[in-house]
Parts: sequence; structure tokens; C-alpha cells
Amino acid sequence: MNKHLEFYFDFVSPYSYIAHKEILKLVKNNSLKVDYKPILLGGLHNMHGIKAPAFIPSKARFMIRDCKMISEKYNQTFKFNSYFPIQTVNLMRGVFVAEEDDFKGFYIDSMFDAIWRDGFNMNDQNIIDKILKNIGVNPKTFYLRSTTTVIKDKLKDKTTLAFERGVFGAPTFLVNNKIFWGQDRLEFALKELLK
Amino acid sequence: MNKHLEFYFDFVSPYSYIAHKEILKLVKNNSLKVDYKPILLGGLHNMHGIKAPAFIPSKARFMIRDCKMISEKYNQTFKFNSYFPIQTVNLMRGVFVAEEDDFKGFYIDSMFDAIWRDGFNMNDQNIIDKILKNIGVNPKTFYLRSTTTVIKDKLKDKTTLAFERGVFGAPTFLVNNKIFWGQDRLEFALKELLK
Repeated sequence: MNKHLEFYFDFVSPYSYIAHKEILKLVKNNSLKVDYKPILLGGLHNMHGIKAPAFIPSKARFMIRDCKMISEKYNQTFKFNSYFPIQTVNLMRGVFVAEEDDFKGFYIDSMFDAIWRDGFNMNDQNIIDKILKNIGVNPKTFYLRSTTTVIKDKLKDKTTLAFERGVFGAPTFLVNNKIFWGQDRLEFALKELLK
Repeated sequence: MNKHLEFYFDFVSPYSYIAHKEILKLVKNNSLKVDYKPILLGGLHNMHGIKAPAFIPSKARFMIRDCKMISEKYNQTFKFNSYFPIQTVNLMRGVFVAEEDDFKGFYIDSMFDAIWRDGFNMNDQNIIDKILKNIGVNPKTFYLRSTTTVIKDKLKDKTTLAFERGVFGAPTFLVNNKIFWGQDRLEFALKELLK
């Protein structure tokens, strides 16, 4: 299989975590190649005039139980983060810094785990710093590099590009210019990859 | 199985059609009992401050392809109605009239088919009248009975009740006071029924 699955995600999204873990199983299996596409979900929602489930009480309540049900079905370790919604803008910018230093995949998996497996309060800079140290990153340098204009613009541009391609939520899979929205559409995206 | 699956629906919703057809297979199989709960989806969305996918262009475009993918997976006959979104308020009120006359199930299936199998313009009263005639109903009498204050209030009250129980979309399944939102959550609702 030569084609890549484009995977649009934001750490803030629990369904993105679930999709990421399912995708990892396939990657480890050598049955899939993935191109991780960081976006800022809040910004993307604003462009579309979409109100996130987190801000619709009944929907938010359902989402918490729904994520639990689905992660159990997939035998994933998952805990709904009690500090949700997490401000992920700097964490998402960090993906580009990690990419420059060749540990993008490891960084993505570590941040997803910190939020949705371990339930850390990632709105607290001290806790972010601790987790970065744990994965061998200098928090101060990383923060400074993550917040340069170049990196800030990168996340903005990638989010705008996603918007222009019709992406309106996360997780989204893009294959052959077709959008597949939601972790439960992964099977359809994989089928499209084989075409 | 003595418990019933509560199924909240509106004819306007293509995913409700898909869920309905999957449910019908199980009902015909004697493996499920269903309590159809008519609601007005537009009103429910307003109560929650939710903008329907139909009014978010990228989401609407995805929905059309998504419904096709899913209905194909289930081997259903499905055609996205080109007159969507259909004004379903009178059709939904009609469910209560059909219930009084003991043809609720047949009426529901016929209206779903008219919109999502046959693609009729159900915003046109002449076409509605034709379809009602085809299923042996006098359109004039049915319309008059559907638009009495008693019936109007019934749909309003049921929608408010659904809102109060935490229903925020369609299709929604309710089992043991738990909500399952979306046709792809039917499997979880069925599991909950066995508890």
C-alpha cells in the first residue's frame, strides 16, 4: 500500500485519541501509512460556525459516556479528562517543532496519552513541562520554539487549508480527496485507500 | 426480551431512515420491540442551540456521501432527497393520527420510504396527498386531524419531554434511561437492552 491516510486531529478531541490508537494498531502491523495533520479544532469550528459538543450540555454529557463505550469496545485504555476542554493551541504548535526534530510520532502519542489515558491537567504549564521533561524535551526551549511566529502561522495555515479542503471536525480522514469524519468512519477511509 | 427500545426520530433525518430500516429487520426477526417516539428535530435543535448539519455546507456535503456509504454497507435502498431539508412538521403530527387509527407503524415506514427511498418532494402538499391516498388515507381528513390544537400540542410536548430527558438529535435510542445518539450507536443500545 503506497497511499497515505491523512489524519486531521487536535489533542483536545477524545474521538481523535480513539482514532489515533486504532490507527497505531494498523501502523504497527505495517498495514497502514499515516500522515498526521495537526489542526486547531476550535479555529476550524469557528470558520464553519459550528458549536463544539463541549459547549452543548446534553451533547457533552453523552460524549463522555460514548467515548467510554467505544474505547471499551476497542480495548483501549481511556479516561475522560476531567479538565476538559483543554487549551491545546501550544501543544498543537509543538507538533511542528517535534517534526523538525524528528520525533513527531512519539510526541503525538505522548500528548494524546497525557490527556486521554492519564487524565493530566494539561491546562497547567507546570504539568506540561513535567511531561515534556519525561519524554526528554527541554520545556523552556520547546515552548519558545513552539510560539515563534513561523510556527504559529504554520498551525493557522494548516487549519485554513483543512477548512478549504472541506474538513469541519476531528478526527477527519482524507483519502483520494474524500473526507471521512469521525472515528467510526475509519473503516470507510481504509476501504477508500484500497481503491 | 420484554424491554422496548425507545426510538426518537424525525422523517427529516436521513440517519433516522437508516436506523429505522435496520430496526425493522430486527423487528421482523422478532428479536426487538420498538417504541417509536416522534419529535420535531428542528425544535429540539433550537432548544439546545444546535445548528443542524443541513445548514453547515461542508457538513451537509459530507452527510450526503456518508448516508450513501452507510446505507450501502447495510444493503438498504436509499436515495438522498434532492428537496432536503423537508418541512416535516405536519408529517410528524400525522404519526399521532395514524396511532389513533392503528396504522402507526405502516404510516412511519411509508413516509420514510417516500422521502428517503423514493426521493419525493414532500414539501409539496399535492405529492403528500397522493402518497396518503396510495396508503388508503383520505388526505383532507388526515390533514385536518393532523393540525388540530390537540395534535399540534402533542408533538410539541413530546419534543419538550425528549429535550428534558437529554435527547439532542435524531436518531436517538433510549434504554434504561441512557441515551444512544446516532444510527451507529444502535449496537450499543441493543447491548444495553440485554442488561
